[in-house]
Amino acid sequence: MKLIRFSADGRIFAGRLEGDLIHPLDDRPFPRDCRLDQVQLEPPCVPTKVVAVGLNYRDHAAELGLKLPEEPLLFLKPASSVIGPGARILLPPQSTRVDYEAELGIVIAKTAKNVTREAAAEHILGYTCLNDVTARDLQNKDGQWTRAKGFDTFCPFGPWIETDVNPANLAIELYLNSERKQRSRTSNLIFSPAELVEFASGVMTLFPGDVIATGTPSGIGPMKHGDTVEVRIEGVGSLVNTVW
Amino acid sequence: MKLIRFSADGRIFAGRLEGDLIHPLDDRPFPRDCRLDQVQLEPPCVPTKVVAVGLNYRDHAAELGLKLPEEPLLFLKPASSVIGPGARILLPPQSTRVDYEAELGIVIAKTAKNVTREAAAEHILGYTCLNDVTARDLQNKDGQWTRAKGFDTFCPFGPWIETDVNPANLAIELYLNSERKQRSRTSNLIFSPAELVEFASGVMTLFPGDVIATGTPSGIGPMKHGDTVEVRIEGVGSLVNTVW
Repeated sequence: MKLIRFSADGRIFAGRLEGDLIHPLDDRPFPRDCRLDQVQLEPPCVPTKVVAVGLNYRDHAAELGLKLPEEPLLFLKPASSVIGPGARILLPPQSTRVDYEAELGIVIAKTAKNVTREAAAEHILGYTCLNDVTARDLQNKDGQWTRAKGFDTFCPFGPWIETDVNPANLAIELYLNSERKQRSRTSNLIFSPAELVEFASGVMTLFPGDVIATGTPSGIGPMKHGDTVEVRIEGVGSLVNTVW
Repeated sequence: MKLIRFSADGRIFAGRLEGDLIHPLDDRPFPRDCRLDQVQLEPPCVPTKVVAVGLNYRDHAAELGLKLPEEPLLFLKPASSVIGPGARILLPPQSTRVDYEAELGIVIAKTAKNVTREAAAEHILGYTCLNDVTARDLQNKDGQWTRAKGFDTFCPFGPWIETDVNPANLAIELYLNSERKQRSRTSNLIFSPAELVEFASGVMTLFPGDVIATGTPSGIGPMKHGDTVEVRIEGVGSLVNTVW
């Protein structure tokens, strides 16, 4: 099942997508003609926080000559950085290098605190595509990653939440202006989605709609004004944004 | 004016405190006998995020032999870490050293994006006492401060929002079991509240009720099970929590 949020007639609705047809999840009446190409998709949920993870792909660690981490390295992207599919990533004047980072996003289904990896599945609503946009120069300058990864528009995700996919071995790719820049498989993840839910929920309570960004594979690089950037995950979907 | 939130009869209300008498800010009817000692105070607002600042006291920088930073170093504490006055700080099993950090908290009045320091005052609702609780061992281990500062209960603030205080030169103190451990003045702040609103809002949109934690002076140290910890700020108030 693909869960979406969309705007039409100046309001935001929740729906379920079947082919290109949108079925209501709201009890409010839908606008007429509710097909995918007739609405504007919004971020598919409203997280209170986005918990993200540093180095989490074996191939990326090997490329950088780094030892595999013993436990996940957490950081936060504020809810104010979230945008939906099709929306613009705005390049801030403070940075001269803003990078894409293709990531699998985990969407939390219900309040999670000290959830074991065995119980993680029932706390996961589904998966989405996420771009962990990063001002690389500020990341290096600050040491703490909050500013570099926290600008408004720096957390595009969507286009929907796919509830029926096994995240164990999915192709994940990033395309910049239709040129493939990142390519890996989620089987290269050092810490699995279930392990990340266990680890993160052992620190902070996760709420329904909260998102965990699971880290990016090798091949990160800069974007410039006018670029189109796409995160494509097998069995999940394709998230396209423009850079402004 | 002192703005509070409190629970009574199983519900949460907003009020204004005058002496020990609570005046309604809700249009819902108040419980009877609404005096301060008859209610349980809650966090005085509901932030979507707490933006915090690293090294920001001149005396603390001097004590550590550090150069003054050129710009604020931001990090985030999740809303899930917030507790109110009187509530328990829970020591997590992952850490063997959990420290207090007394801080002046800025509460945002209205949505702020790219606000100049000159316009900051009109975006500030008031000030509060905040304890930036930190698992020091995990802070050193992780490099990123998110886990160390993001555990549930690691962001006590309150007891209220004081709207009528000039933050330029206030005594700020921390007491552990009635023994003074930190003592400075906000005149030692490297970046003023107005400068922090400018800097943070130049990165991320701040929403009403969001909190900026302005950094801690010298004297940080550990807390243990059973301790009582108090952040006291002249003209603002006293925030007391126990450690469990």
